[in-house]
Amino acid sequence: MTLSLSAVKPHRQPWPGLIEQYREYLPVSDQTPIVTLLEGNTPLIPIPAIAERIGRQVRVFVKYDGLNPTGSFKDRGMTMAISKAKEAGAKAVICASTGNTSAAAAAYARRGGMRAFVLIPDGYVALGKLAQALLYGAEVLAIKGNFDQALEIVREMAESYPVTLVNSVNPFRLEGQKTAAFEIVDTLGNAPDWLCIPVGNAGNISAYWMGFCQYHQVGKCDRLPRMMGFQAAGASPLVTGKPVPHPETIATAIRIGNPASWEKAVAVKSASMGNFHSVTDAEILDAYRLLASEEGIFCEPASAASVAGLLQVKDQIPTGATVVCVLTGNGLKDPDTAIKHSQSQFKQGIEAEIKAVAEAMGL
Amino acid sequence: MTLSLSAVKPHRQPWPGLIEQYREYLPVSDQTPIVTLLEGNTPLIPIPAIAERIGRQVRVFVKYDGLNPTGSFKDRGMTMAISKAKEAGAKAVICASTGNTSAAAAAYARRGGMRAFVLIPDGYVALGKLAQALLYGAEVLAIKGNFDQALEIVREMAESYPVTLVNSVNPFRLEGQKTAAFEIVDTLGNAPDWLCIPVGNAGNISAYWMGFCQYHQVGKCDRLPRMMGFQAAGASPLVTGKPVPHPETIATAIRIGNPASWEKAVAVKSASMGNFHSVTDAEILDAYRLLASEEGIFCEPASAASVAGLLQVKDQIPTGATVVCVLTGNGLKDPDTAIKHSQSQFKQGIEAEIKAVAEAMGL
Repeated sequence: MTLSLSAVKPHRQPWPGLIEQYREYLPVSDQTPIVTLLEGNTPLIPIPAIAERIGRQVRVFVKYDGLNPTGSFKDRGMTMAISKAKEAGAKAVICASTGNTSAAAAAYARRGGMRAFVLIPDGYVALGKLAQALLYGAEVLAIKGNFDQALEIVREMAESYPVTLVNSVNPFRLEGQKTAAFEIVDTLGNAPDWLCIPVGNAGNISAYWMGFCQYHQVGKCDRLPRMMGFQAAGASPLVTGKPVPHPETIATAIRIGNPASWEKAVAVKSASMGNFHSVTDAEILDAYRLLASEEGIFCEPASAASVAGLLQVKDQIPTGATVVCVLTGNGLKDPDTAIKHSQSQFKQGIEAEIKAVAEAMGL
Repeated sequence: MTLSLSAVKPHRQPWPGLIEQYREYLPVSDQTPIVTLLEGNTPLIPIPAIAERIGRQVRVFVKYDGLNPTGSFKDRGMTMAISKAKEAGAKAVICASTGNTSAAAAAYARRGGMRAFVLIPDGYVALGKLAQALLYGAEVLAIKGNFDQALEIVREMAESYPVTLVNSVNPFRLEGQKTAAFEIVDTLGNAPDWLCIPVGNAGNISAYWMGFCQYHQVGKCDRLPRMMGFQAAGASPLVTGKPVPHPETIATAIRIGNPASWEKAVAVKSASMGNFHSVTDAEILDAYRLLASEEGIFCEPASAASVAGLLQVKDQIPTGATVVCVLTGNGLKDPDTAIKHSQSQFKQGIEAEIKAVAEAMGL
């Protein structure tokens, strides 16, 4: 084998998946069978067009977690939840979900050789949302009841039958999710000044805070970020201080009226000197389009809440600060919103000759 | 700042995007403005369930390029094409495409501050396929003509107007695409024995071969893979040796009757002692479902052709060989196929109480 100068460049260690990468910070042992799709290691992408709208040398990045294997941040928690379920000998897992959780649960459970059950309310027609979970081999059961009843049943099932619950109450999920904070610090060399994050069930904001605090404690960063949580205006219980009985927003992934991690999120807000704000659907859609058409980044509508929120409170950001906005899911998860809310030009009926095309292009 | 033992772990260099990572192997200079979404660095995931079907200690991995920023391998070529267009002073780019190329072109062009024009045949109704490009801010023009006329017009436009052509004839695209071969070698420590890859326009198989040869030349690997190209049975000109006037297959991304890189691909086959084979739509769908339901990996139907092909010719693989199958696109690009071809269980009308649910689960 001939060696050239280029071979001197140090070998790049392949990413081993987030559990192996952060094993020392996670509740796993040599006995834990790791079920991984090499999740994590998602890019931290600068968004200069949005930074320019803020000015004052503020640096802005997005943590694009839509590039996880099933297209959302849920993979971070699911590699932990499924590995621990397998360690405990589970043959099946269950969750109540119509979205990203069901896809992640199905993918990891099947990869781990387990059955994956997904409970949903009957008459839930948007099959497209479940297409991914079904293809991964989920067994979907529609009950004659609402979503709260589905949640109640899966909790009971997990208590009295040999199936492991992988809904957000599963404690290993937040452990996995905290690794996104580790990755941000590893990339920036320190914690950002602000972390902007969409808030629905409020688990992810709690997980990020856990991650930053743990890294701070071992000296990986010498500061902690201000945690800025953004909720959709029609589903903003943490902003108003009371549950929302009928939450409504285009950002379906954060359409939650009574967050499971309510108290944790309030504690994060105080401890980090952060805040909760609400953003309207119009602000969310503006940020969603702006990210795609000026930065080249396509996220789920709910993800865009973090950028919408940042733009809403931009005058509060210290000059020269570093801000990270969390984008939780891939835009490809929700093609309907892309079709409905694109404002791009689509011209039809143009003659098939070069002059007509040039004219249509304004050249 | 307190330092602990854990801080001793070497700092992980953040991935800088494929141009910066492989700058010495690419036609860029200090004058090239790099337009990047931190593409590349996609995971090489073991697929043990498929390896088990082959047996004989064969190791099988997928290069999951659907985790690029716009969801396909096209981002590798587009970061190069758009950076070079920007270096040349282009204010607009153009392509004829209804799929992954248009999405990648739009995302990178808009990120680089350029206009992105996409020409398609009129009456092309599947707006869903274009939703992503439209959201990225593409300006879509539908002409009264067929796809070949659209291709002809964009070529002429690029010659006589100030717009840069970013269709596959753009030479910088293959330069970017070859980096996937670099990444595979960097991860495995050598080239695989076999590379299995879906073949449509035949640009990607040529790009991978360029990459392996270049790395071999500088001593990064001491062998070259056998290049195994797989076409859909209804669109297999490289297998039959003659163009297909009306190509048909469920794998739309490789539904091409007259490949642009025909001669290059034939040369790759000879030089690598590889082969071309065709796989039926049924074989493609079987591999597509198998990848999702046993490995937890959701790809485009066209991507699954590489795995379908591998399974077809599995008896030819040497014992103990290392095989990499290329998955070119994310399954989320094509939700319709997922809905139509999932074989999972979907049970409805179950009573909302635990016994009924347990019974439906077979517990």
